[in-house]
Amino acid sequence: MAKRLIPTLNRVLVEKIVPPSKTTAGILLPEKSSKLNSGKVVAVGPGLHDKNGNTIPVSVKEGDTVLLPEYGGTQVKLGEKEFHLFRDEDILGTLHD
Amino acid sequence: MAKRLIPTLNRVLVEKIVPPSKTTAGILLPEKSSKLNSGKVVAVGPGLHDKNGNTIPVSVKEGDTVLLPEYGGTQVKLGEKEFHLFRDEDILGTLHD
Amino acid sequence: MAKRLIPTLNRVLVEKIVPPSKTTAGILLPEKSSKLNSGKVVAVGPGLHDKNGNTIPVSVKEGDTVLLPEYGGTQVKLGEKEFHLFRDEDILGTLHD
Amino acid sequence: MAKRLIPTLNRVLVEKIVPPSKTTAGILLPEKSSKLNSGKVVAVGPGLHDKNGNTIPVSVKEGDTVLLPEYGGTQVKLGEKEFHLFRDEDILGTLHD
Amino acid sequence: MAKRLIPTLNRVLVEKIVPPSKTTAGILLPEKSSKLNSGKVVAVGPGLHDKNGNTIPVSVKEGDTVLLPEYGGTQVKLGEKEFHLFRDEDILGTLHD
Amino acid sequence: MAKRLIPTLNRVLVEKIVPPSKTTAGILLPEKSSKLNSGKVVAVGPGLHDKNGNTIPVSVKEGDTVLLPEYGGTQVKLGEKEFHLFRDEDILGTLHD
Amino acid sequence: MAKRLIPTLNRVLVEKIVPPSKTTAGILLPEKSSKLNSGKVVAVGPGLHDKNGNTIPVSVKEGDTVLLPEYGGTQVKLGEKEFHLFRDEDILGTLHD
Repeated sequence: MAKRLIPTLNRVLVEKIVPPSKTTAGILLPEKSSKLNSGKVVAVGPGLHDKNGNTIPVSVKEGDTVLLPEYGGTQVKLGEKEFHLFRDEDILGTLHD
Repeated sequence: MAKRLIPTLNRVLVEKIVPPSKTTAGILLPEKSSKLNSGKVVAVGPGLHDKNGNTIPVSVKEGDTVLLPEYGGTQVKLGEKEFHLFRDEDILGTLHD
Repeated sequence: MAKRLIPTLNRVLVEKIVPPSKTTAGILLPEKSSKLNSGKVVAVGPGLHDKNGNTIPVSVKEGDTVLLPEYGGTQVKLGEKEFHLFRDEDILGTLHD
Repeated sequence: MAKRLIPTLNRVLVEKIVPPSKTTAGILLPEKSSKLNSGKVVAVGPGLHDKNGNTIPVSVKEGDTVLLPEYGGTQVKLGEKEFHLFRDEDILGTLHD
Repeated sequence: MAKRLIPTLNRVLVEKIVPPSKTTAGILLPEKSSKLNSGKVVAVGPGLHDKNGNTIPVSVKEGDTVLLPEYGGTQVKLGEKEFHLFRDEDILGTLHD
Repeated sequence: MAKRLIPTLNRVLVEKIVPPSKTTAGILLPEKSSKLNSGKVVAVGPGLHDKNGNTIPVSVKEGDTVLLPEYGGTQVKLGEKEFHLFRDEDILGTLHD
Repeated sequence: MAKRLIPTLNRVLVEKIVPPSKTTAGILLPEKSSKLNSGKVVAVGPGLHDKNGNTIPVSVKEGDTVLLPEYGGTQVKLGEKEFHLFRDEDILGTLHD
């Protein structure tokens, strides 16, 4: 059973971050409190070719925390873990503290 | 909880300016008085690659006051603050006194 | 309150010319007499990048009187004045006596 | 009142030729006899930029008699005269005796 | 009355070949017998500009017998003769004995 | 009556291979047994121009046995023979024993 | 009867991997357990031409185990074996243990 996926072209493999429903002190967070649709980059493809054959590298890298669009992404199950594949241009930005 | 977002590609992060409903002297402004859909640029992406691999920088910069289109933009909540993500080509212009 | 707008990319800011309903001698002009949809260019953007990163300047300039398409244009109110934003390629031509 | 229009980009200003309903000898021409949709070129724009920023001149010139497509063209009234604006690529060809 | 048309860009002027309904010996050909939609090239345009401003000549020439698509083509009457205008890329091929 | 067609641009003229309904020993083949939609390349066009005016040759050649898509292709009757015209990019591959 | 297919352009010939319904020890796997839509690359085309006529090689190679999209692919039967043809850009990634 395959455990690792190397994305092709400019695809990005992301493991979604499930926002905590309680604070660290155990207090239930209100349902509507800010739920960022974010995830951790697990693997990136080599990038796309531009019209002149140069390769345009993917704009995010392994380990980045990224903001994901509300829709889209292809679900991929590797073993028991669930991941999502996005195209580089659909990743909205990188998140930082 | 992430507090900062660096947009990807040619995306622009904007904090909308809520037009005052009263004048500085406290007089209620008529509902229909000119309501510019504007905002402050908070962060910009590195820009897009053109066909030859050159990067085309975003045409507005952090701190600019910009005129926004009536529709579009992706809502992003970072902590308690609300922002909107636009593509560079959707920003209509920069506003000046 | 912002009073000046510098358009982005190849956008053109135009102040529409309202055709006179009477002749200079005060005679009412027939409703259907030629009503050119025209305006004065107030400001232009820096232009668009072509595929090789060169900037293609806007084809009209501040002060030009231009023929506008029947439809399109984004309405923009700056203070009490009303303007319209067009893309360079939508301006039909420059008008001359 | 503007009397002259210089088209922008690759637009072509044409004055349509109204085919005679009678022969020079005054004989009524049958309704269906060949009615070429043609016109005289009055003014042409500077042309379009190609991807490398070169300007591609318009393929017809002032004074040419041209064959027009059945549909399309923007009507423009300058003073009492009626003209039509076409894009260069919509002009079908030049007519010669 | 114009008698000659020089097509613009990559347009091709064709005079359709009407397939004989009888053999040379006068025998009626069955209705369904092979009816090639073909024609004679009468005039060709100078060709299209590619992205770098080079002109790509039309791929057929005056005098060629060409295979035409089942649909498309703009009808043009010059004097009493009927022609059809096609774009170069719509001509299917050249016919030879 | 034209007997030969030289395709234009990147078109490919193919004579479809009708799969045998019986084995060489005369045994009826089951209706559903593998029916490859294939054909013999009879003639190819000179190829398409790319953006820089270079000609990209067609990827198959006369005599190749090719796998055809399930749909598409323009039927062409030359004399009593039936052929089909495909665009190069629609040919799925070349078949070999 | 053709037994081998060499794909054209950037097409990829894949033999789908049918996931085992039982573990090696013979225990029935739950229907919903992770079913990766994957396959083995059997043959690849020469690649596509970019705008400058350079050939962009296919991003996967013979022998790779690849992750396939849920939909798409053209079914091809060669002899008794079933294969699927995909375009290079539709292959999601390469799978590794």
